[in-house]
Amino acid sequence: MTLIVQKYGGTSVANAERIKNVARRIARTRDQGNQVVVVASAMGDTTDELLQLAYQLSEKPDSRELDVLLSTGEVVTSTLLAMALHSMGYPAISLSGAQAGIRTDSVYSRARILQIEPRRVVRELDKGNIVIVAGFQGITEDLDITTLGRGGSDTTAVALAASLGAEVCQIYTDVEGVYSADPRLVPEAQCLGEIHYEEMLELATYGARVLHPRAVELGELFHIPILVASSFTENPGTLIHGGVSMEVRNKVRSIAYDLNVGKITVVGVPDRPGIAAAIFSPLAKAGINVDTIVQNASIQGITDLTFTVVKSDLARAIEVVKPLAAQIGARECASDEKLGAVSIIGTGMQNTPGFAARMFSTLSEKNINIQLITTSEIRITCIINAAEVQEAVRALHRAFEIEEE
Amino acid sequence: MTLIVQKYGGTSVANAERIKNVARRIARTRDQGNQVVVVASAMGDTTDELLQLAYQLSEKPDSRELDVLLSTGEVVTSTLLAMALHSMGYPAISLSGAQAGIRTDSVYSRARILQIEPRRVVRELDKGNIVIVAGFQGITEDLDITTLGRGGSDTTAVALAASLGAEVCQIYTDVEGVYSADPRLVPEAQCLGEIHYEEMLELATYGARVLHPRAVELGELFHIPILVASSFTENPGTLIHGGVSMEVRNKVRSIAYDLNVGKITVVGVPDRPGIAAAIFSPLAKAGINVDTIVQNASIQGITDLTFTVVKSDLARAIEVVKPLAAQIGARECASDEKLGAVSIIGTGMQNTPGFAARMFSTLSEKNINIQLITTSEIRITCIINAAEVQEAVRALHRAFEIEEE
Repeated sequence: MTLIVQKYGGTSVANAERIKNVARRIARTRDQGNQVVVVASAMGDTTDELLQLAYQLSEKPDSRELDVLLSTGEVVTSTLLAMALHSMGYPAISLSGAQAGIRTDSVYSRARILQIEPRRVVRELDKGNIVIVAGFQGITEDLDITTLGRGGSDTTAVALAASLGAEVCQIYTDVEGVYSADPRLVPEAQCLGEIHYEEMLELATYGARVLHPRAVELGELFHIPILVASSFTENPGTLIHGGVSMEVRNKVRSIAYDLNVGKITVVGVPDRPGIAAAIFSPLAKAGINVDTIVQNASIQGITDLTFTVVKSDLARAIEVVKPLAAQIGARECASDEKLGAVSIIGTGMQNTPGFAARMFSTLSEKNINIQLITTSEIRITCIINAAEVQEAVRALHRAFEIEEE
Repeated sequence: MTLIVQKYGGTSVANAERIKNVARRIARTRDQGNQVVVVASAMGDTTDELLQLAYQLSEKPDSRELDVLLSTGEVVTSTLLAMALHSMGYPAISLSGAQAGIRTDSVYSRARILQIEPRRVVRELDKGNIVIVAGFQGITEDLDITTLGRGGSDTTAVALAASLGAEVCQIYTDVEGVYSADPRLVPEAQCLGEIHYEEMLELATYGARVLHPRAVELGELFHIPILVASSFTENPGTLIHGGVSMEVRNKVRSIAYDLNVGKITVVGVPDRPGIAAAIFSPLAKAGINVDTIVQNASIQGITDLTFTVVKSDLARAIEVVKPLAAQIGARECASDEKLGAVSIIGTGMQNTPGFAARMFSTLSEKNINIQLITTSEIRITCIINAAEVQEAVRALHRAFEIEEE
């Protein structure tokens, strides 16, 4: 029998009716002759409501207690899903993350899965049960409950699929799949039939919120195909896997964007060793993630150092950098918070020239000024004015003829 | 250092403000130099809301799943209490029933505690923590979550107090303590300063809803004094213990009542062995609890058999008994659902004559007809018309001069 792991997101289980709908989908998968393991998210806004309660009681809630509190949301959904399946005549059992053997480190609120001991899951599958596992949570060696942080339930699902040797991990959500661009910006954007792990990783990091990069990484590492699809429709969704056909690969697959980019430029820096470390070590210590770093060519031993951060970190980053800039003898420290990023992504890019040139000329034709450029093997990102991001995404989607796929 | 176990009921922790209030009370107990273990109930109506969700998904929710679902309510409160204590600067940690080592049998929804392995609780106390344990729940040998049924959190608290050797188990609720009669019926009713376990047991069984009999039994068995008091006031409450002074004991302590009594009389039963078994075994199999059984003296080999059940069970009981009555050759099967019970309770009664006589004459003076009488060593109960219960309680309260204590 084929084993399938399915994960249902918070909006898919937001109320009793939707939970029944999800139960019917699970039952159908079972009727098709599969063993089914389901990973459940917390219902709708449950997690936010619990967080709100916590912050009413403490300005800075203890992270161990917060994890125990938040973990209850997924437990509630998994028992309700099991009950719904029972009432349809299907054998089912809910397991907490702990019972499902999801062992993590003890970094509360963003724990990492160390290991899965799926004995109980396997035993219940062998008994003929549909097994519903509470997502987003695990347990430490000391039997304390942890949560996995952003994208936690996706990670639970893919990790379970890997440890159980599942055929596929299906992530059901409120969107149809992975699009060639955000359909709100580009009406002609298409839902992709398939996409390579690497492309999805770049997409997840550079704009698309469909699936967390952690889950994609795990899928690639353990060769688990991941289907992203809607729990509200019968559309086929997007399959993320490593075997995407050559023809499809030789293309730009998707345009990603991000409107939350802040930029800091340290102007007139003496170009000598150790300067970068003097700036970026204190930022790292302050817990500020730096995305893109560009250093201009040095002219007469003086250079400019520019980097970007998430807009919400910009104010804190400036506080850290200003005194450092003075110390190292820089002329000034400028910042801009009205920036965005636009990226073209596709594994086809890595062996084919001309993508960058076409991207830059497309933006140039629209009179869009490029402030910074960064690239990976399968991605080119331009930092531009936030106000021009929408126009840039549309123009690039047309220029690379993604809609004709 | 003295160890105190405190339990706070659902209304005492119904919202963030009340949880803060409870945290202040816990902190004060700690400041007085005590080690503190707290048992938390689910917030306000949480349990009912979860039940409602469950019944939206299944007409007959699976009891294992229901227990997991309901157990989350107490977990939520215990984390919030820990957070509130942290924000006041007190070290605290929440533990689930499982983490607190509360081992139960696997009778879901009304599990019994088999054993408590309080290693983790002791370890956290030794570290200086206030330990908050989620009430109402335990774990089976197979690591499945169970709930303890009605009065569950009270039972958790007294059992923990016993296994930890606590000085006292304090049950905080929304009433001031145990009264000499229901203050809604008898305005001059008094909150008792102390009461014997046995009296409290009779009271809990025959009307007062303050504390579940299971918790009282455990307290008596392990000699744990139990204080019942309000979490909203500073009044001293009622201490339930075994050392109630002689003078206080030689009295009727409290008048209990119950308005939910249904009566069935099987009229004209041939008086031969096996008749009672023929009626009561099928009732037991149907899960119907029979409270009082009275068989009249036999006249010419024909007798009447009368018994009472909780009013909500009356219709089902009649369904069971009617065909049986026909089978055993009884003349008819009559029922009455407009009945109530009134009881006088006090350990002083067991060695002193005259209590029964005074009870009967008091009721007689009020023209109240007694339909059935049952007694224990420390209790006399009369079944009367429900409409006359209030008057009976008031008259008895006066007759036994309880207000002059």
